[in-house]
Amino acid sequence: MANETVVRFGILGCAQISIKLCKSISKALNATLVAISSRSLEKAKVFAAEQGLPDTVRVYGSYEAVVEDENVDAVYIPLPPALHVTWAVKAVERGKHVLLEKPVAMNVAELDQILEACEANGVQFMDGTMWLHHPRTTKMKEALCDEQRFGQLKLIHSCMTYNPGPEFLKNSIRMKPDLDGLGALGDIGWYSIQSILWAVNYELPKSVLAFPKSTFNEEGVIISCGSSLHWEDGKCATFHCSFLTYVTFDVTILGTKGSLRLHDLTLPFEESFGYGTFSESSEIDYGNIESGRWCPKPNEHVVETEFCQDVWMVKEFVDLVGKVKSLKMKPDKKWGVKSKKVQIVLDAVKESIQRGYQSVEIMMN
Amino acid sequence: MANETVVRFGILGCAQISIKLCKSISKALNATLVAISSRSLEKAKVFAAEQGLPDTVRVYGSYEAVVEDENVDAVYIPLPPALHVTWAVKAVERGKHVLLEKPVAMNVAELDQILEACEANGVQFMDGTMWLHHPRTTKMKEALCDEQRFGQLKLIHSCMTYNPGPEFLKNSIRMKPDLDGLGALGDIGWYSIQSILWAVNYELPKSVLAFPKSTFNEEGVIISCGSSLHWEDGKCATFHCSFLTYVTFDVTILGTKGSLRLHDLTLPFEESFGYGTFSESSEIDYGNIESGRWCPKPNEHVVETEFCQDVWMVKEFVDLVGKVKSLKMKPDKKWGVKSKKVQIVLDAVKESIQRGYQSVEIMMN
Repeated sequence: MANETVVRFGILGCAQISIKLCKSISKALNATLVAISSRSLEKAKVFAAEQGLPDTVRVYGSYEAVVEDENVDAVYIPLPPALHVTWAVKAVERGKHVLLEKPVAMNVAELDQILEACEANGVQFMDGTMWLHHPRTTKMKEALCDEQRFGQLKLIHSCMTYNPGPEFLKNSIRMKPDLDGLGALGDIGWYSIQSILWAVNYELPKSVLAFPKSTFNEEGVIISCGSSLHWEDGKCATFHCSFLTYVTFDVTILGTKGSLRLHDLTLPFEESFGYGTFSESSEIDYGNIESGRWCPKPNEHVVETEFCQDVWMVKEFVDLVGKVKSLKMKPDKKWGVKSKKVQIVLDAVKESIQRGYQSVEIMMN
Repeated sequence: MANETVVRFGILGCAQISIKLCKSISKALNATLVAISSRSLEKAKVFAAEQGLPDTVRVYGSYEAVVEDENVDAVYIPLPPALHVTWAVKAVERGKHVLLEKPVAMNVAELDQILEACEANGVQFMDGTMWLHHPRTTKMKEALCDEQRFGQLKLIHSCMTYNPGPEFLKNSIRMKPDLDGLGALGDIGWYSIQSILWAVNYELPKSVLAFPKSTFNEEGVIISCGSSLHWEDGKCATFHCSFLTYVTFDVTILGTKGSLRLHDLTLPFEESFGYGTFSESSEIDYGNIESGRWCPKPNEHVVETEFCQDVWMVKEFVDLVGKVKSLKMKPDKKWGVKSKKVQIVLDAVKESIQRGYQSVEIMMN
């Protein structure tokens, strides 16, 4: 691509995850970091120094400054979710393309504001979920789509947990109702719901029923919850998300003829060695179930990858932005549609919890 | 042990699983098969010939004959669950010790009849669940009890499925309300509930809530269902059981500090090679979560075993029966207590389904 298609990134906020994105941007072709910001100029300077950012990267003491910077094409927004709608819309209205951390918004109404602003201003939207962009994810989808091997999808279970400890539960922005309010459901529950919808090609469930007895912190933010999801054709999914148990990123997908599992959805165990794995099993002789030779050990599939998944994400975003920027193509709406479906289900789970664990129907439109 | 402590087995019914038990009995010390039966003498003779049973094994054309045989110390009952209470009680009243296939009864009331008969007649009861007796199970329990490694138990998920096909769903005894009626819930759901209760040291949950939309066959027998289980202290478990998806025997147990998983609960993949495995993970540096070095790949633990789990089960049963028979000790009630707790939860799940997926409280007594 010609030089003019290089996408110039600004980052709003020096969050922990911003460290990773600085590296991802530096590794992706046709991407360059040109600005970072924090509410405190001092904090932004320390971040720039610690990350060894080149002098060409402008360091700002306000998010506003990045949004106003005419040399910024696209912003990465890792701010607390409650601030997403404000800053995403501000950026979009200045013509910036947006790579927005998950959970993308506090609810669907806020996300609609963001997506409508993107539409009105002709800019690209993508949420910051990395695993969707790993080559492993493509290979898994191929396995699920293989009717001979996998059959018809029936059950999905996803469990996303980690245990950041009492200090986090008390003081993290993920635990403050004015900054996040979605807690574990928004943070890791996002991955659970997303993995489930990804598996069913983003077909929305008909209803959602949260498990009784979610756990909340003193300010009423979700620390731990779970839900079942139900489709008209009998497909069923369940998920748990929790800040109270040891780290787990499991997804199990069962079809009539095969199964697919992974235990490291969000960050592949072996990504730093250049690959990701998943296990898959099929073809069994049911006649032998009770004689004990019934079940083949799952096959481990190794998917090599040239880049880590965060780099793949940036590359995909940069490609889409490049098409808008230099080829004057329309932004691709598919990522916004996918994010919205995750948010719709997330909202329904939250509503089910708030309504005392009643079933919530999801409206199709 | 002296020769007189040999336990002489009779088998009621030439089911597929009886083939396995004939072999287990032949491999266990101090156990010998002395009688088999079927409702049809012809069928019993064919079974004896096909399995190459020695001439010393008496072959009967009725279950009654085994129960009346004075040379039988203990019976193995793999009959359809609806027949368990009748034949278990008959056998127990003739002084036979009972190894009873799961699900042990159609409901707790029936199981109580069986257990009361065992108590009154001084005979040993054990259900026919094999996995509980594998040395791997002991090792897993040690891992779960290690406070430093596993912490406090928080979440359990168990998924037990297989897909025996339309012929089975129509004609299997597991699909006939008069013979079974518990369907997938009694067959593989038994394992799910048992694995969950085993993990929590058989502490009964406070409530049970079946997932909406179980699947039934034309005669109203459960083909597929699931449930969440809830304890007073916030522990939560979920399970799926289904005759509609590819074979899966997964259990995932999450604590505050560690996790434990296996994908072959009921029949270890590698049992025929003399071992079973489970994976376990703990010790993580949460500071590195977002930099991508957060999660250690689970460790695979290999547990060697001299015998397959079915042989271990028979050995355990024979040891207990031997103590009653030759040492005149009282029967050990622990296996009856464990089976009853599984049945209590199973009944509650069935009740939740029957009551339109309402929460069912479990009475403690």
